[in-house]
Amino acid sequence: MAEHLSQSELDYPFKLLEYLNGYRVSKVIFAACELGVFELLMRSPGAMSALQVAEALDASADGMERLLDALAGMEILQVETADGTALYNSTDVANTYLARGGAKSLHDMVAYHSQTIYPLWNNMADAVREGKNQNQKTFGILPGEVFEAIYRSEEEMVKFMGLMNSSWNLDGQDVVTAFNLSCFQKIVDLGGKSGHQRAASTHVQHFGNLSYFLPGCTGALARELARAYPSSSVTVFELPRVVEMARKHFPQENDTFAFHSGDFFHGDVPPADLYVLARILHDWSEEKCLTLLKKLYRACKPGGGVLLVEAMLLENRRGPIMAQLFSLNMLVQTDGREHPPSQYTKILNQSGFAHVQVCRTGKSYDAILAFR
Amino acid sequence: MAEHLSQSELDYPFKLLEYLNGYRVSKVIFAACELGVFELLMRSPGAMSALQVAEALDASADGMERLLDALAGMEILQVETADGTALYNSTDVANTYLARGGAKSLHDMVAYHSQTIYPLWNNMADAVREGKNQNQKTFGILPGEVFEAIYRSEEEMVKFMGLMNSSWNLDGQDVVTAFNLSCFQKIVDLGGKSGHQRAASTHVQHFGNLSYFLPGCTGALARELARAYPSSSVTVFELPRVVEMARKHFPQENDTFAFHSGDFFHGDVPPADLYVLARILHDWSEEKCLTLLKKLYRACKPGGGVLLVEAMLLENRRGPIMAQLFSLNMLVQTDGREHPPSQYTKILNQSGFAHVQVCRTGKSYDAILAFR
Repeated sequence: MAEHLSQSELDYPFKLLEYLNGYRVSKVIFAACELGVFELLMRSPGAMSALQVAEALDASADGMERLLDALAGMEILQVETADGTALYNSTDVANTYLARGGAKSLHDMVAYHSQTIYPLWNNMADAVREGKNQNQKTFGILPGEVFEAIYRSEEEMVKFMGLMNSSWNLDGQDVVTAFNLSCFQKIVDLGGKSGHQRAASTHVQHFGNLSYFLPGCTGALARELARAYPSSSVTVFELPRVVEMARKHFPQENDTFAFHSGDFFHGDVPPADLYVLARILHDWSEEKCLTLLKKLYRACKPGGGVLLVEAMLLENRRGPIMAQLFSLNMLVQTDGREHPPSQYTKILNQSGFAHVQVCRTGKSYDAILAFR
Repeated sequence: MAEHLSQSELDYPFKLLEYLNGYRVSKVIFAACELGVFELLMRSPGAMSALQVAEALDASADGMERLLDALAGMEILQVETADGTALYNSTDVANTYLARGGAKSLHDMVAYHSQTIYPLWNNMADAVREGKNQNQKTFGILPGEVFEAIYRSEEEMVKFMGLMNSSWNLDGQDVVTAFNLSCFQKIVDLGGKSGHQRAASTHVQHFGNLSYFLPGCTGALARELARAYPSSSVTVFELPRVVEMARKHFPQENDTFAFHSGDFFHGDVPPADLYVLARILHDWSEEKCLTLLKKLYRACKPGGGVLLVEAMLLENRRGPIMAQLFSLNMLVQTDGREHPPSQYTKILNQSGFAHVQVCRTGKSYDAILAFR
């Protein structure tokens, strides 16, 4: 996405037209995921015709043919024509990322994009105009009730946790190995991940203690930490309700990390050598971040530190486009925003942490390490 | 969009994530167009801060800053930071294509994408499942009433004609010069352009003669024909209502083409050396296309021909992705579809036309020329 919009666009705006059609490309993939195309083709012993796929998935043959052709055009599927009939086959990329259930499957992420975020972004102009999220306009959810609605049932909560799980299955290894953390004996992952710890806790601010709703921790990031640093002990510090859900819906054999129930904003945090705050600080005002970081500084063992995991903006505002899109997503869906490293460095220093090191992974999420 | 989804995606799916985020990229541009960002920056004598842009457009400073930064990340705007304040400037690409009013402005096209097509595509999975358009689910428009609704007022009709105007302002020159047409003395552009000639005429099929609604002809394609072939006479053959609207809302000085009122499906067509059918045949069943082409064959002067302008699919189904997306758009919004050249060649031959020549422009629309 970082390709140059050069002067050659003035002859014909190929790149701009690609941007303008981006939503259609997204929805081709989303629709195929929703219809179950990728699981079907992955399991199929051989290539299938559009008619066969349509019949297996109870869809129209004509619509399915157009969808499969577009996926072939994007090289997400393979197509060969034999005796006048086009036969479609899966690809390693589709099997790995788009079929449901694999270790790196983004299927749950896609479903959330398609059903929740895509409609929210339809109101982006209003979000920019008003400077606030568009949950009410998009879903009829009254202000302040966003996360009660998102977690209105165990099913909805699990769906959202699945989304977050996808995210760390993809990016977890890179962010935990951005620095060599093997010197830290006891690692505590605060809130597991959070995505919406922010917003639920915004509720705490606005509506009293609704921290019951704090979600997010499936343990996916802790799992990557435990894998990368087998000599360290890894603990996920999460709300009791979330710990219960994670154990019930996202267990894995041979996990070597532990869960620890608690609420990092409203109680003590366990002592540790390293605290991990993954997508937590982007949810909060500077004041709230300082309160949290100072608490961690006090609890931190001598020689210990804190690892921040965030999608960091460039200081010069020219990217990365993914972090910029995330920041606009925080606008249209929540009350948070993304920041450049200077902002994180500033509040880390103000909280007492020193020797701040920034590592851009070049992927979706980056890491900042600081020491007590 | 034709970049390879190579095996390197298995290490990290950069391209796939770009596809999944495509809708957000589109909506960044759409929102900026809707808010008037590009006209403001084009007219501004100097670079502007996010706060200045926000105040001028009655938007939030925070939201505007994130939007402008994303546009800078996409290189659609320029940004420089001076004394801690980021200042944003327009670019030639933004001025040419995204600001309203220029000769190649896509502003009207963007508005239509954002407000009509983006919401329709939210129901793509259902369109594929059901094999039919999603106007009812998306807009509450009852089946068969789609185009009555789209053209429910002069304002709406002009908005849609503006969209089509954008399209030929961008692609018209390429398609009319795909072949040297200077040998044709009298050129008749049937329906001007059509986009929805198809659907209005679907109404004719379903609901009697509603051809009153046939729209499309602003004369933009005829203008390009007249420019490229100054020795030829160029006539737009359109319905009386459309001719009236085109003359009222899309006049240009020095135009050398003429309008001719009529209905090419329900009456005679004027004799000509070349008939131009731009985005007409993709609207119709094979039977209807044959009826129309046979009528043109009979009316065509000896040595004359027909020029088809369509976004043509590849025979091997592997692209072009833009034509594949258009074909899915025909599914979700209309009753039509795109075709590969073999389909057009087949019906041209069946209608009596010969010496079929196909020219792919490499851009959005292609051309096929055939002779009587």
